[in-house]
Amino acid sequence: MLIMIQRKKWSLVIGLLAAALATTLPLPSKTASDVLPSWNDGPAKQAIVQFVRATTGKAGPTYVPPEQRIATFDQDGTLWVEHPMYTQLMFALDRVVALAPKRPEWKNTEPFRSVLTGDKTAMAKFTTEDLEKIVGATHTGMTVEAFQAIVKDWIAKARQPRFKRPYTELVYQPMLELLSYLRAAGYKTYIVTGGGQDFVRTYSQQVYGIPPEQVVGSAGATEYTYDQNGNGVLIKTPKLLLNDNLSGKPEGIHLIIGKRPCAAFGNSTGDRQMLEYAQAGSGARLMMLVHHDDPKREYAYGPAGGLADTKVGAFPDSLMTEAKTRGWTVISMKNDWKRIFAFDRH
Amino acid sequence: MLIMIQRKKWSLVIGLLAAALATTLPLPSKTASDVLPSWNDGPAKQAIVQFVRATTGKAGPTYVPPEQRIATFDQDGTLWVEHPMYTQLMFALDRVVALAPKRPEWKNTEPFRSVLTGDKTAMAKFTTEDLEKIVGATHTGMTVEAFQAIVKDWIAKARQPRFKRPYTELVYQPMLELLSYLRAAGYKTYIVTGGGQDFVRTYSQQVYGIPPEQVVGSAGATEYTYDQNGNGVLIKTPKLLLNDNLSGKPEGIHLIIGKRPCAAFGNSTGDRQMLEYAQAGSGARLMMLVHHDDPKREYAYGPAGGLADTKVGAFPDSLMTEAKTRGWTVISMKNDWKRIFAFDRH
Repeated sequence: MLIMIQRKKWSLVIGLLAAALATTLPLPSKTASDVLPSWNDGPAKQAIVQFVRATTGKAGPTYVPPEQRIATFDQDGTLWVEHPMYTQLMFALDRVVALAPKRPEWKNTEPFRSVLTGDKTAMAKFTTEDLEKIVGATHTGMTVEAFQAIVKDWIAKARQPRFKRPYTELVYQPMLELLSYLRAAGYKTYIVTGGGQDFVRTYSQQVYGIPPEQVVGSAGATEYTYDQNGNGVLIKTPKLLLNDNLSGKPEGIHLIIGKRPCAAFGNSTGDRQMLEYAQAGSGARLMMLVHHDDPKREYAYGPAGGLADTKVGAFPDSLMTEAKTRGWTVISMKNDWKRIFAFDRH
Repeated sequence: MLIMIQRKKWSLVIGLLAAALATTLPLPSKTASDVLPSWNDGPAKQAIVQFVRATTGKAGPTYVPPEQRIATFDQDGTLWVEHPMYTQLMFALDRVVALAPKRPEWKNTEPFRSVLTGDKTAMAKFTTEDLEKIVGATHTGMTVEAFQAIVKDWIAKARQPRFKRPYTELVYQPMLELLSYLRAAGYKTYIVTGGGQDFVRTYSQQVYGIPPEQVVGSAGATEYTYDQNGNGVLIKTPKLLLNDNLSGKPEGIHLIIGKRPCAAFGNSTGDRQMLEYAQAGSGARLMMLVHHDDPKREYAYGPAGGLADTKVGAFPDSLMTEAKTRGWTVISMKNDWKRIFAFDRH
């Protein structure tokens, strides 16, 4: 009986000690592994966990109230694969091929001719004006619902050339875990992409758990008009309203969200201003850049990568210098991620 | 004892009957009164309750899944008082007066001279260009945070000329109840205003329970730049990006929300296209127009009102005709609302 009581006392003491430790010490790494299982223990994962702890612990000096918890994510190269070419550009090229029978004049008109003949050399030299013509011909002149249906159909069938899988499977598992982890901590997660807002909104909920209204992207103007039954419809027009890249990212964030993010995630020069803008707010901040340094499991480009001068997801030395100067965390895909995709074994 | 048992049996039977009635019959009007206490029983309140029942009852053919439950509200004249003049224009005029000491040239420059001398005849004739000059001079050339601070300060101090109360107290109590009722039914409530997005976002949470990111409004472009410490800031510029009025309302809804609303509420020609756009979706829909027909408790303008030709919240006969043709519900402030403001006795 005495032994029983003593055991009880001991367990009580141990319980109290454990409770005290839990409130004063950092969470044991076990917990972090549970929520971010595809991240190796290292500075990147540590930065994430520390940021969440700093901004959600009510007693702390850097506590952020829930309505201010905004986290913004670039998409291409940050949440999913962008090489050899942005998914939306693949879509546009496929649409040129699909629409060609109804547009016989394209056989003799650039830039369509090069797309239809599969002239990769010519396509590699496409100017912004060429791309605008292709986007205009494939993304406009229809209702917003008709465009959504076309994208949904395409994305269900298209396959990425190297991995031979749907693009929607080529999302980075560690980033999906990060999105969930932040949401569980009360953060509202947004995509802020140079890609088309209407394009990304068709699959954002299903792929990332991010509803359409939390996608900020480049956007053409729509025009309100009436269909043959007198019903109000919106037609997509070629007029560019938001160029959500570079300085356009913080500008788009202000327009659509109206709040400064506490955390921002990108992977290229297009994300620089978004990360700067997040950092310039007061209190604890988290800025991270995904560095593609894993040619075996994904691709290598950017500093010390295989394609330092790529235009798709450019990460020049100057961006690495800014990251170091401003104290941004660079995520090494090779070293920080146990696996890249959900289908990877590890 | 026998009586007791019989009473118990009876109460049991009555209880079962009541439960059966509750599941098969429409909710008793008592319940609706509880949630919309400032609404008189009548067609307007009935339309609201029926719409919510039709779209949230899981078994019904017009059930709307939660992520599609979007309701959009005009602000001026729909959620709060807009006469004798839009609140934001009052703000702009007050700002001209406040800034005048630093802008001595305004004494001899129109439209500022008329504002500074209080020349109401001249002000009544202001052109769009005049108003753009005033908005440009008072709403741009500063960071978005500086503008927010100016608005917050002004709105805390300003008083509406007739009611001698802060503008934020001149919100319609029945509409606040409607907002709450819809939110309780899983609807995401948005403001879609011709007024300035940055202006309304400063008080939308506090006044309407609507967070800044759920305010769609007219918006000037911002320009990303750096302050003297190298921190990223956004400066408000005079370039108009969104004119969120008339056709601009459905266009703005698509840009910011990306979903077609199931319910839309307005009070003037500026809201026509928004209501049409909501109605053109499939399933149960709710379109309502607030008619200002109560000069005693608020104002009267629009059809059969005192100021049929007002430019502030214009409600011409043609809009009433469209409402009847398309089956929109017109809310009579006089007949449908028990009280207008929270401070009204009733």
